Parts: sequence; structure tokens; C-alpha cells
Amino acid sequence: MTTPELDPDIVEAPYPFQRHLGFDFAAWRPDYCRLTLPLAHELMNRYGIPHGGVHAAMLDSAMGFAGCYTGDRDAPRLAMTLSLNVNYLGQARGGVLIAEGTRTGGGRKTFFAEGKITDEQGTVVATGTGVFRYRG
Amino acid sequence: MTTPELDPDIVEAPYPFQRHLGFDFAAWRPDYCRLTLPLAHELMNRYGIPHGGVHAAMLDSAMGFAGCYTGDRDAPRLAMTLSLNVNYLGQARGGVLIAEGTRTGGGRKTFFAEGKITDEQGTVVATGTGVFRYRG
Amino acid sequence: MTTPELDPDIVEAPYPFQRHLGFDFAAWRPDYCRLTLPLAHELMNRYGIPHGGVHAAMLDSAMGFAGCYTGDRDAPRLAMTLSLNVNYLGQARGGVLIAEGTRTGGGRKTFFAEGKITDEQGTVVATGTGVFRYRG
Amino acid sequence: MTTPELDPDIVEAPYPFQRHLGFDFAAWRPDYCRLTLPLAHELMNRYGIPHGGVHAAMLDSAMGFAGCYTGDRDAPRLAMTLSLNVNYLGQARGGVLIAEGTRTGGGRKTFFAEGKITDEQGTVVATGTGVFRYRG
Repeated sequence: MTTPELDPDIVEAPYPFQRHLGFDFAAWRPDYCRLTLPLAHELMNRYGIPHGGVHAAMLDSAMGFAGCYTGDRDAPRLAMTLSLNVNYLGQARGGVLIAEGTRTGGGRKTFFAEGKITDEQGTVVATGTGVFRYRG
Repeated sequence: MTTPELDPDIVEAPYPFQRHLGFDFAAWRPDYCRLTLPLAHELMNRYGIPHGGVHAAMLDSAMGFAGCYTGDRDAPRLAMTLSLNVNYLGQARGGVLIAEGTRTGGGRKTFFAEGKITDEQGTVVATGTGVFRYRG
Repeated sequence: MTTPELDPDIVEAPYPFQRHLGFDFAAWRPDYCRLTLPLAHELMNRYGIPHGGVHAAMLDSAMGFAGCYTGDRDAPRLAMTLSLNVNYLGQARGGVLIAEGTRTGGGRKTFFAEGKITDEQGTVVATGTGVFRYRG
Repeated sequence: MTTPELDPDIVEAPYPFQRHLGFDFAAWRPDYCRLTLPLAHELMNRYGIPHGGVHAAMLDSAMGFAGCYTGDRDAPRLAMTLSLNVNYLGQARGGVLIAEGTRTGGGRKTFFAEGKITDEQGTVVATGTGVFRYRG
């Protein structure tokens, strides 16, 4: 028996852009979040591969959630992105992108995170870092 | 009489992710591109404002196109993003995002660009920089 | 007669790393700072050109000062860098680097800035962006 | 008996800016480099703590060397930084900075790297990412 990585009771209903891109939560715990995105046709760019904005959106989301875990859907923690950096290491193969975000530091007002995107074969195709400010 | 900023004959058919986000070309000339995006409901995040991934996708696109102008739809120039940096200065007001990209340097193999996103009131809400590699 | 760009009475005594690199203030006003650095031998890298860390240090400094102008040496405003991004567009020619920083946004707690480094011929050799947090 | 992490025969003579900052090689192998820097007085900023440009220079150096290992001092591999991103997580304590760089991807023309700076207590005080282009 394994410990599930995601308690379905803590996941909020998807917001509009989440539904529009089509990603789901795969894991969420303090300082860590993993999201998965099936690579539908509408995410493709001029060259028929996933648009760089998709990687950026996934990294922004996974890193942001990593710093906002509370374990209570009714007491969400909110944050705004101050700065986002994405490096594009290679092209994804297969039908899904997996975005992981990890909180790496910070305090009560701001936090730092790093993230990576791997494809179905486990190859890292993009990495990211971000600085976020807590709201409210 | 004003000089139009966009020759409709040079604009390629929208690719899937462009159509999915919903942006259009407003201007395209050597080293410069401007895109506009109506802020539809499906672009909104957890807080009801445009998701940071939308700004990133628009900046990546406008900066990439800025370095790839040829003036000939049948002889497109292609580029891959190596690195993208986005800073989020504030919240957009109104119903549209305007993304501008400018090529700032580079040579035959790689190029550098900077960009900004303004809202309907002309306020800069995000800035970006990028490094791109030409393909082929 | 021209308006001087720098009131010598507002410039603080150089701090240790400023003296170690060797840069001076050329202009400082609200939201803007310009620094100049003579390219001494000790700033050179493996290839005999200025080390990338020199550009980064100059951009960090010029952008930081841009957001911290008070006009009163005895009432300094202080800030910490949260995030710094530097793009290296080309090699400097001549004997001096000129670093300019401009505050582009933010509020009472954090600010955003952009900067560039030009060489003696006026060529932009590096650009930067940064996010800073005010201290105290 | 432990395996030494650094073969002294492969380390090149320090270049001018390396000597000016004062860092040394602690480890160098394919895709990895670690540098150490004693925190001398001249590296301090307005506030008496190490200047952010020092972290940037160390990360740029460690990441650049990580992608340039050859194991032969007489056949050096050279690279230019295209883009550097640094996040400042906290203040260093103690008398030394340790910068580590790891090559994370790329090919024959460009490479990607990530890095971090820890202080004497093992606390991560800065992280970085970079994109580099091989020379020649």
C-alpha cells in the first residue's frame, strides 16, 4: 500500500485558465506541487510542438501552488508572481507534460521556488524559477 | 492617411495555441511585433485576473516574432526560445492586453529581445526579456 | 550652461565593493541612476574581456540605486535584490562601461527596474531586469 | 582515504577577475564545478553584507565552468554567457561562499546550467540559472 500523493478533498475547483489549458493536480503537499497536462492539439505552436507559453504557465502554476499549500480548501493561501524565469532545454516527447514546483525559500511576505517540466519519458524539457508575493 | 502597421498578406494563418489564447497581430515589421489579446473569461486565474502564464505566452510570442520578420509568408523564419524572463508589475484593467516585442541584438544564430505588456489604459503590467535561437 | 546630472552632495561615500570594482556615480535622480566603470585589467575574464559578473554587479547596482533615490545623503533608502536577470548581447569596446538603471514600477514594499550597459561607442552590450524589496 | 574532488593539474592559472574576487576551485568534473570564496571586506555592499554582484559573478563562473570541463588544462573549452538569472534567498553567515554549478542540458552549441550558493552553515543564500554558448 502506498501513501497517495494527493488528498482530493484539498484540491479547489479548477479556475478558468486551468480548465482552458487542461491541467490536473497530481500531488500537493507543503512546499511541493505536481501538475500534469495532456498535450492536446490546441497547445501547439507554429511548429507543431507545445508553445513555450504552455511551459511557462505550467511552471508558474506549479511553483505558485508549491508555496501556497494549506491542506484546507476553505482556507486558501494566495500569491502573486513577481518574477518568472524559464529555460527551454529540449522538446517534449509523448502525450503529457509533468510540471513540478518546489518552494526553496522566503518568509511571510515573499517566497522563492524552482520547477521543472518533464515529458512522458522522464526527460527534463524546461526548468524555471520564480519569486512570489503572498496576498492579503 | 496613415501608414498601416500591418500588411495582412504577410501574416500566417493562426497556429493552434494562438487561436486557443485568441491573440491577433496588430503590427509586424523588422525587429518589432505587436499582438493584441481580448481578455476572455477562460484566461482568468484563481483570483479572477489574467493568469501569469498568459502574459508569459504573449511576451514569448511577440518577442519571438520580432526576431523572425521576413515580409514573406511563404518564407517564414523560425526560432526557438532558449530563455524567457517575465516581471509582473501590476494588474491589467480593461478588456485587452497589448504585447510588444523588440529585437535588441544578436546575430545569425541567436537573438535577444525585450517586450512589455500594456493594458487598455496604457499602463505597463508586465515586462519581459528573451533569448532565442534561429532554427534550420 | 547645462544642468548637472549629479549633485555631489547627495552621493554617499563608496562602499567596499564599489571601490573594489571601481565605479562612480554619473547621474542620480528619482527612478534613474547612471554609473561608470573604467575597465581595469583586474575585471577581465579567462578571455581577456570583462567578466560577466562585472556586468551583473553594475546592473544590480544601477537598478538598485534607481529605486532608492532620496536626494538626502543622511536619509538613505535601502533595498535588497530579490531577483536579477542579465542578458549578454555583445562585447564591450573601449575603456569604460556605462550602466543605467530605471525604476519601472512597484510600490512601497517592492520595486521593479530595468537597466542596460553600453560601451564607449554607445553599443548596448548587456541588458538587465530586477525585482527589489525595500528594507526597514 | 577519499577520492579527491579536484585534480590540481587540470586547473588553469587564475584569470584577473578571479584573483580580484578571490575564489578558488574546490571541485571540477564533467557537468559540475564548485568554487569557494572567502568573504573579504572588499566584497561588502552598502549594508556590510556581500554585494549581490558577488553572488552573480560566482554563479556565472561556476555554471560556466560546469559546462566547460575537459580534464586537460592545455585544451580548454570556452563559453560565453547568453543569459543569467539569480534569485537572492537570504543572507550569508560565516566567512565563505560556496558556489556550485551543474550543467543541465544543451548540445554542441549551447548549454544550460543551474547553480546555488551556500554559506558556511550550509544554508542556500542564492540560486541561479544560465544559458551559455560555446566559443570557437
